[in-house]
Amino acid sequence: MSLQTAGIYNFTCPVRIPQKEGGVQDTVAAISLIARMPQDQIESCVDVMTKLLTQYLPDIHTGNFPALLSQVREQLKAEEARVSMRFSYFIAKTAPVSGTSSLMEYQCAFSASSEDTGEPLLTIVAPVTTLCPCSREISSFGAHNQRATITLSIQPLRLIWLEDLIAMAESCGSSEVYALLKRPDEKYVTEQAYAHPMFVEDVARKVAQQAMAHTDIGWFSVGVESFESIHNHSAYAFVDSKDLKKTTA
Amino acid sequence: MSLQTAGIYNFTCPVRIPQKEGGVQDTVAAISLIARMPQDQIESCVDVMTKLLTQYLPDIHTGNFPALLSQVREQLKAEEARVSMRFSYFIAKTAPVSGTSSLMEYQCAFSASSEDTGEPLLTIVAPVTTLCPCSREISSFGAHNQRATITLSIQPLRLIWLEDLIAMAESCGSSEVYALLKRPDEKYVTEQAYAHPMFVEDVARKVAQQAMAHTDIGWFSVGVESFESIHNHSAYAFVDSKDLKKTTA
Amino acid sequence: MSLQTAGIYNFTCPVRIPQKEGGVQDTVAAISLIARMPQDQIESCVDVMTKLLTQYLPDIHTGNFPALLSQVREQLKAEEARVSMRFSYFIAKTAPVSGTSSLMEYQCAFSASSEDTGEPLLTIVAPVTTLCPCSREISSFGAHNQRATITLSIQPLRLIWLEDLIAMAESCGSSEVYALLKRPDEKYVTEQAYAHPMFVEDVARKVAQQAMAHTDIGWFSVGVESFESIHNHSAYAFVDSKDLKKTTA
Amino acid sequence: MSLQTAGIYNFTCPVRIPQKEGGVQDTVAAISLIARMPQDQIESCVDVMTKLLTQYLPDIHTGNFPALLSQVREQLKAEEARVSMRFSYFIAKTAPVSGTSSLMEYQCAFSASSEDTGEPLLTIVAPVTTLCPCSREISSFGAHNQRATITLSIQPLRLIWLEDLIAMAESCGSSEVYALLKRPDEKYVTEQAYAHPMFVEDVARKVAQQAMAHTDIGWFSVGVESFESIHNHSAYAFVDSKDLKKTTA
Repeated sequence: MSLQTAGIYNFTCPVRIPQKEGGVQDTVAAISLIARMPQDQIESCVDVMTKLLTQYLPDIHTGNFPALLSQVREQLKAEEARVSMRFSYFIAKTAPVSGTSSLMEYQCAFSASSEDTGEPLLTIVAPVTTLCPCSREISSFGAHNQRATITLSIQPLRLIWLEDLIAMAESCGSSEVYALLKRPDEKYVTEQAYAHPMFVEDVARKVAQQAMAHTDIGWFSVGVESFESIHNHSAYAFVDSKDLKKTTA
Repeated sequence: MSLQTAGIYNFTCPVRIPQKEGGVQDTVAAISLIARMPQDQIESCVDVMTKLLTQYLPDIHTGNFPALLSQVREQLKAEEARVSMRFSYFIAKTAPVSGTSSLMEYQCAFSASSEDTGEPLLTIVAPVTTLCPCSREISSFGAHNQRATITLSIQPLRLIWLEDLIAMAESCGSSEVYALLKRPDEKYVTEQAYAHPMFVEDVARKVAQQAMAHTDIGWFSVGVESFESIHNHSAYAFVDSKDLKKTTA
Repeated sequence: MSLQTAGIYNFTCPVRIPQKEGGVQDTVAAISLIARMPQDQIESCVDVMTKLLTQYLPDIHTGNFPALLSQVREQLKAEEARVSMRFSYFIAKTAPVSGTSSLMEYQCAFSASSEDTGEPLLTIVAPVTTLCPCSREISSFGAHNQRATITLSIQPLRLIWLEDLIAMAESCGSSEVYALLKRPDEKYVTEQAYAHPMFVEDVARKVAQQAMAHTDIGWFSVGVESFESIHNHSAYAFVDSKDLKKTTA
Repeated sequence: MSLQTAGIYNFTCPVRIPQKEGGVQDTVAAISLIARMPQDQIESCVDVMTKLLTQYLPDIHTGNFPALLSQVREQLKAEEARVSMRFSYFIAKTAPVSGTSSLMEYQCAFSASSEDTGEPLLTIVAPVTTLCPCSREISSFGAHNQRATITLSIQPLRLIWLEDLIAMAESCGSSEVYALLKRPDEKYVTEQAYAHPMFVEDVARKVAQQAMAHTDIGWFSVGVESFESIHNHSAYAFVDSKDLKKTTA
């Protein structure tokens, strides 16, 4: 048993995330850093990792993941090092009719391994509305709907902005979710949801189709969880591109 | 500074809750036990409390709260002792049209002080559907709706069953929530919600009116949180019977 | 894209877990049930799954996982169905010196796939004390120590009781954790921890060695997270038996 | 029943917190905004509040709480409006021997009511080490210790910096907690903790004494929760300055 994985979890710190529109966004991240290494190197790993992370603060970003991981490998004689960084990311979003702008928060993550040569994995969590097709079909009026979350993880083949990945996922629900809506906007999203009934499986499939069609996305997985308004439990759907390839082969 | 409060938090254990229909229900509780006492008694309090709780297991229930609190007071020379017990409680609920029965889970709590002479405080958390009156009014079809939770805490003047308190709260949303619905049930709850649009404030007010009218309820508070299907944040309303009395006086 | 996974998450219900000492233990579980199936079967899956789960309540246990999964597969024409069940499990534990008995809570889980023929996977989370070897070595007196959790998942080749798996994990820290200790017990566990300093990596390795040596355990993984008493973040170590085989080959 | 409380919960957004050393710190906050108002004003409150919050972003700070609350009151004809803002705050902390600097994260909160005229309430959560006096006394070597959190809420009579309040709380445990320690630092904090054994009650009392002696602190409460390294539950102590005044009177 000569190799083992060890590291630090939930190291909370300020970080700066590059924005599509230019500049960086200041936010707060929880970082995990782990390494697979020979047993005799392991004892000092928490100290070494904390020290390295501290040196990079507050400028830890995907651009210096390779340098960070390389230093971890070298100082710990590790076979492989991996970093992941979860953070809140904010995007100014425009209401569909009034054009009012408001900030939406999205949970995002970057993760990378010292064995990767390309872009780090991206994960985004986007809230959407789902409106139940069955409820709409059988009811004389109305249809139950609710907030759902789309968790999309991808391997980018070239740089993909968080903004674009989030917009892609948000377009796949019954309707989008906003921080601030005026009355004409509320009318719009209500009617939009009613006109586009979707089960969680439909949402997962639509996101998967868009990810398959995207030339810059390699592997991906998409999970959709709907906090059912008429039930006390969640409905869930999941697609992994590895299974899709198996099936279509 | 001769008095201080100390105790234990989140002591997880199996408990038995008496049911309205007879018998007891086995479930799992997180218990907190604290005492206000002179400083020189305080050092052994964690041990004394853990030992006393262990003696009562798994038969801790509201009936032996007075004995437990009295032993805590005596052994620790405490001025006051307080216990609270949070647990999952299950009720078989009948679907509105098909009559299908399914189990619903409710978060509940009992809490008591050695200074109380009557029944312990009850807290129940009941999920309901809320359907937005504004969205319904301005939209040509549909209306956004979502799961909301009603948190109702009361001081019973006489024994009140959890089952009755939960049923009272559940009747105050746009529609009730179920574990299992057949298609005619789903049609019913969808139309029921559309026919009874309510803001969180309407739900809080309706629960408060029923609690005010209940002859066995003394003090109460009600909070309603709605996980908005078109927004990323919650809407919240709260009523405390103390404020109501102030206003109506 | 003809296959997709869908199902229900966090269906909370009472369950009965068979105990090593005989009889069953009543507790509360969160169940997830998912299936991989053709797209045209998917729309009714939440209803079918909720209905099936409801039929088995409150007698869902590993013994009827195969029947449940087989019914899910048949009714949904699914390729594969998977169930997992997370619950609190209680074991009466004897203090090391005084012999006082008290109940300890452990988070446990069973999970199974319709493709498995053997025992379901078991997961247990056991709290232990870890005492830092470095801190002990460099300090004139004392050594920092803290609560850590061992998360052990295994594929049993034959029936393994939760009680035995938990006892195995608990024996691998600097000292065990108890609900109730008298003074001679507290002296014992304090000295025991000081005499057995261990990093999280040491704990993970010790659990892995015991799991490797156990003739009834196939695949396993072990994660150890230590809530460092001198830091604000966790130390973490992880071993997967698949990596061990790779290395020792 | 003419008055009711309503508002929004968990509105997540970027904020800028003024620092003692000058400048501001960019971080992420969860904001709650509620108002007590006549029932006929209530229906639009979520929209009005979201719109007002959006106007202030990202410059919501305690300095404009009065203006925000005054606008909420005016637009909703509310009797009272209250805001609270929870956020991660980072402070560069110097290791006790090596002088190495590292960033520590602290959960903090500001809250204010339109009825207040002075400074907003401050809450800080500071991690410390507690080392058990009983364990140390009865054991031949070592003593169990663990991470504990001090939650201190105060009414400042004049401006008090978060930095100073956190430093005051951190000085009251068996030892302080750091993000990064070199070996001589680890020796120091280990011996420091062993030399200053404290129960949670001792920590709560020490914080309370310092808060009582502080001329710029009015009301305060302090809660200390210790994640016991030898137990599976927490020890807890609490002091409210209102009770202290009662006792000392």
